[in-house]
Amino acid sequence: MQNRALRAASLFALSLACLTITRAQSTSALRVNAPRISEHLTALSKFGANPQGGVSRVAYTQADLDGRAYAINLMKNAGLDVHIDLAGNMVGTRPGREASLQTLMIGSHIDSVPMGGNYDGDVGSLSAIEVAQTLKEHSVTLRHPLEVIIFQNEEGGTVGSKALGEGLTAAQLNLVSQSGKTVRDGIRALGGNPDRIAEARLKPGSLAAYFELHIEQGGQLERHKIQIGVVEGIVGILHSEVTIEGFGNHAGTTPMDQRRDAMLAAARFIEKVNQVVTATPGAQVGTVGWLKAEPGAYNVVPGKVTLGLELRDLDEKKFVALFRQLRTASEAIGKMNQTKFTFSEPVIVHPALTAAPLRKLIDDSAHALGFTTLLLPSGAGHDAQEIARIVPAGMIFVPSIGGISHSPKEFSRPEDIQNGANVLLQTVLKADASSSN
Amino acid sequence: MQNRALRAASLFALSLACLTITRAQSTSALRVNAPRISEHLTALSKFGANPQGGVSRVAYTQADLDGRAYAINLMKNAGLDVHIDLAGNMVGTRPGREASLQTLMIGSHIDSVPMGGNYDGDVGSLSAIEVAQTLKEHSVTLRHPLEVIIFQNEEGGTVGSKALGEGLTAAQLNLVSQSGKTVRDGIRALGGNPDRIAEARLKPGSLAAYFELHIEQGGQLERHKIQIGVVEGIVGILHSEVTIEGFGNHAGTTPMDQRRDAMLAAARFIEKVNQVVTATPGAQVGTVGWLKAEPGAYNVVPGKVTLGLELRDLDEKKFVALFRQLRTASEAIGKMNQTKFTFSEPVIVHPALTAAPLRKLIDDSAHALGFTTLLLPSGAGHDAQEIARIVPAGMIFVPSIGGISHSPKEFSRPEDIQNGANVLLQTVLKADASSSN
Repeated sequence: MQNRALRAASLFALSLACLTITRAQSTSALRVNAPRISEHLTALSKFGANPQGGVSRVAYTQADLDGRAYAINLMKNAGLDVHIDLAGNMVGTRPGREASLQTLMIGSHIDSVPMGGNYDGDVGSLSAIEVAQTLKEHSVTLRHPLEVIIFQNEEGGTVGSKALGEGLTAAQLNLVSQSGKTVRDGIRALGGNPDRIAEARLKPGSLAAYFELHIEQGGQLERHKIQIGVVEGIVGILHSEVTIEGFGNHAGTTPMDQRRDAMLAAARFIEKVNQVVTATPGAQVGTVGWLKAEPGAYNVVPGKVTLGLELRDLDEKKFVALFRQLRTASEAIGKMNQTKFTFSEPVIVHPALTAAPLRKLIDDSAHALGFTTLLLPSGAGHDAQEIARIVPAGMIFVPSIGGISHSPKEFSRPEDIQNGANVLLQTVLKADASSSN
Repeated sequence: MQNRALRAASLFALSLACLTITRAQSTSALRVNAPRISEHLTALSKFGANPQGGVSRVAYTQADLDGRAYAINLMKNAGLDVHIDLAGNMVGTRPGREASLQTLMIGSHIDSVPMGGNYDGDVGSLSAIEVAQTLKEHSVTLRHPLEVIIFQNEEGGTVGSKALGEGLTAAQLNLVSQSGKTVRDGIRALGGNPDRIAEARLKPGSLAAYFELHIEQGGQLERHKIQIGVVEGIVGILHSEVTIEGFGNHAGTTPMDQRRDAMLAAARFIEKVNQVVTATPGAQVGTVGWLKAEPGAYNVVPGKVTLGLELRDLDEKKFVALFRQLRTASEAIGKMNQTKFTFSEPVIVHPALTAAPLRKLIDDSAHALGFTTLLLPSGAGHDAQEIARIVPAGMIFVPSIGGISHSPKEFSRPEDIQNGANVLLQTVLKADASSSN
């Protein structure tokens, strides 16, 4: 009896192993249905479409609600069990075979900036749904439970993913979003519950992994003719409002050598930002994106200029050092024409590194599919950065033509999207096979 | 009979001559009543007074109408026969002794910029009335008719004086002024007649002279401790809107060497304006007073910047050459980061020189009163520049403390105002005695 039982058990184990081998062989051949992704991208693009092209599907607007209803339908068709979480994110679940294992999560967002494009967020969201649909169509049940998540209001500050990560503060809930609604009211409109937002947070390490496919939003992959970007991490950001005070006076009656021209000092500072940021090798960037001169007339020497300084890098120490260097440099600029620089307390978004083992899974999957890869930082913020603070996260980039993003001109080729979706699918399968969490 | 008649005639001529000599002696001792000017300045400052100090007596507003009613009363008290001309200017006339002579005109304006001061325009207007009052109190009748004029809407583009000079176009009449009213409706509200505005124009050479006393609005007199400025002319002005087109892109994902940053190009241009304008000796000035970056956010490399370039000098050839130099320089700046500069067709206000004989009269009068003088250009625009295009004009400056103007902090000392008013009085008397027009 014992022997027979043992034999039966071994036989069962063997057949299980064979089944697993068979599945592993068959799953490595699994591919997404690329025309279906294209079709879904086109259908989604109607919600909030601009007459001039592109889309304005700003979170919490009717266009957003309509787009979400469409996505929920796709998720259900893909066999997912859909619910809205406390933060208002759309979550579709698919059970796994092994009850003890943690969830594998994949997703992105479908909200857009005003006058945005049809690829930022949409590609990753619809490809994640496509992964689920492909698994369903091939009757593949993963070891891990799978969750497809579509985060809400990524463009307004990775709101939905932040709720799962560090959590949202009362101040963040009270912020008026671009829809005109507060984030709090927006979450309510989506079916979330802002009063219980703290419960939306993930416990650290409580997911096996999170993977996000996204368009690069930069031009590096295209420039180097690379098919798949493996994201090293999402860069940190430093913002500081710089105020330059001089003395506003009549432009006709104030001789050049008597001016305390805040605009001239601002110009020298902007040139200095460029010099300091490009003085050392590396991917760090520095930008002055907005400037306000007061009083702001042809015939008045500006007495005050405020401008927005932004620094980004994967290494926080590096951009903090650049900021210090610019503050010091501003003193010398101020002395040149008796203007005074003050810097607001810098607001810092810390860099978020992806998990090295997940990078390797992505890279291996891409190579197995015959694609070239490049390890690169993400200069843009993503939901993955919020999730990466809590659980291991990985990110896959596909090329953005011309590096253009947040614009109706944003474009990624269907073949690149297909490649990315297949890498996502194969990475999920590899993670599922290899992860013991 | 003939002899007797001749004798009587010579006796009459002799007594006339004596009377003239006596009058000349006595008029050179004539002085204004300085405390009265101060009192009137204080009273006028109530109309449109800002709670924070200074005045907002913008043309065509109720504050302007109230201030004008006050000024008309002062003019009447000074024995002037007051009417509103077709352009809405207030004109007070005083007959002269010699019917064949042309009018001597003196005046300025009492409208202000929003959040302006109590000296720009007011000092010259109230001092002109004071001149008339002084003549009345000393029963001095000039050879020439005297007109005291208070021009309307100087701050909105020397509107009232332009109506007398080059004339107002339909486009200028249709401009919406800072009051919210069009100039056309504003003129009507003041009691003028915009439909007959062309008839307001002076015939070239139809006045003996126009004199205007004004605060310097710059800091040269104070800096050099000079009491009276003799204005050489009112500088010409060139305005051009400069558009810099680069490419707006994500500040996080666009490497520094791939940027076509319109803000950086603008910064280099602003520095270049300063370099080019200060490269040669002279009083020329160049200003970038306003700047707009688009889209204007921390996280977007500006794709477009527009800015306002202003150049001023007494010599039009000079500032036109500077403008050409800057256009050329902008091409090199654009090449540095693939941005494109375009300049709007420059709008030019031609310089207006004062009449050399009138400058001498002012200088002589000031020296006779024991004051130091400085010949200087006016960097600011004035009603005198419009009148100088048609008839001989002269301008007297008194010091502005700190060179501050168009600000509640604008200030000129009572003793400086007194000096200026006495120079105006004595210059009118000298012009009256010497002019045969």
